[in-house]
Amino acid sequence: MYQKPIQVGMVLFRGFELLDVTGPLDILGYLPEAFVISLIGPDLQPIASAQGVSILPTTTMSKAPRVDLLMVPGGLGTRQLVNDEAFIDWLGAYGSGAPLVASICTGAALLARAHLLDGYRATTNKRAMAWVKDQAPTVVFEPNARWVVDRDRWTSSGVAAGMDMTLALVAQYLGETQAREVASAIEYQWSDDPDHDPFANAN
Amino acid sequence: MYQKPIQVGMVLFRGFELLDVTGPLDILGYLPEAFVISLIGPDLQPIASAQGVSILPTTTMSKAPRVDLLMVPGGLGTRQLVNDEAFIDWLGAYGSGAPLVASICTGAALLARAHLLDGYRATTNKRAMAWVKDQAPTVVFEPNARWVVDRDRWTSSGVAAGMDMTLALVAQYLGETQAREVASAIEYQWSDDPDHDPFANAN
Repeated sequence: MYQKPIQVGMVLFRGFELLDVTGPLDILGYLPEAFVISLIGPDLQPIASAQGVSILPTTTMSKAPRVDLLMVPGGLGTRQLVNDEAFIDWLGAYGSGAPLVASICTGAALLARAHLLDGYRATTNKRAMAWVKDQAPTVVFEPNARWVVDRDRWTSSGVAAGMDMTLALVAQYLGETQAREVASAIEYQWSDDPDHDPFANAN
Repeated sequence: MYQKPIQVGMVLFRGFELLDVTGPLDILGYLPEAFVISLIGPDLQPIASAQGVSILPTTTMSKAPRVDLLMVPGGLGTRQLVNDEAFIDWLGAYGSGAPLVASICTGAALLARAHLLDGYRATTNKRAMAWVKDQAPTVVFEPNARWVVDRDRWTSSGVAAGMDMTLALVAQYLGETQAREVASAIEYQWSDDPDHDPFANAN
């Protein structure tokens, strides 16, 4: 159990995958007394996902508060962002101050570039795994995992897997009963086994 | 098969359920040549979901284009919105001009109040079913369904069920192969049987 409220930061960038951000936030948003969420953008303007839907940041990279849990989504925007030195430098510095850092989908490529996964086991979207591996020769990527927990780094597989990992994070912070209660409230069938990966051999 | 692109309208209101909107839009957003999405708000300001995350509308209720598919989310905001005569009148008029109208979760209460479900079978969030039924004495609600298709009305069960219904809509418009391709790309385990409802007796 954890002292509440838990401060959560979700990073936003142009071309983020919509569901990587909103799946986890719908879950955490059911527990507003437990989780306080900051949406961290480059500025305070609405920022467009890869799907075109724009979300409003609540704080900026330069002003973001310290968080207990930093979450980094993936999406097509990562393809350019891995080469954005200012962003990668910020992510490395900011993330290394967080007790727990999690990525969804190709967010793992950003963590890897920022040296937040050096010496860790991790996973990512199965279709993007070759590209993500190229970003991070020292990271051990698991080709068969819904999500991977290695000490203070949690990384999930493609898009929807972020919801399964987030429910596991709720369980870690607040207990499994609470996680199952949220899953039931949103009628989501939680794939609660991190080692069961129906998409491992699909692509 | 359908003449592309398919115009989709998603209604936004204060207190919408984040995943009701973004789950379907992440799926449809994978097929930008097939689906053109309008986010219909009361005005063009970012509008807050029940989870606090704000999304930017792309058009307004008074200026929204005609759409082929109108989607109406649920969320805590529906509790007040069912009594908002101006909104309900607009929804009834706008929705009756759409060839297909779909709701997610308690969005069914809004359709019902707007007389868009009169004489139809429908479903909704299992936990909110008693309240939704009160809004619509003439609608036949199915207590055991992931989603219900009755002619030109598609209604889904709670929150995450909207993604399963949306994949079925993709299959209806573009074929099942396309739907399965998107589900695989986002590593989502599609519950593709509308009659299989794991949450029917859970609450």
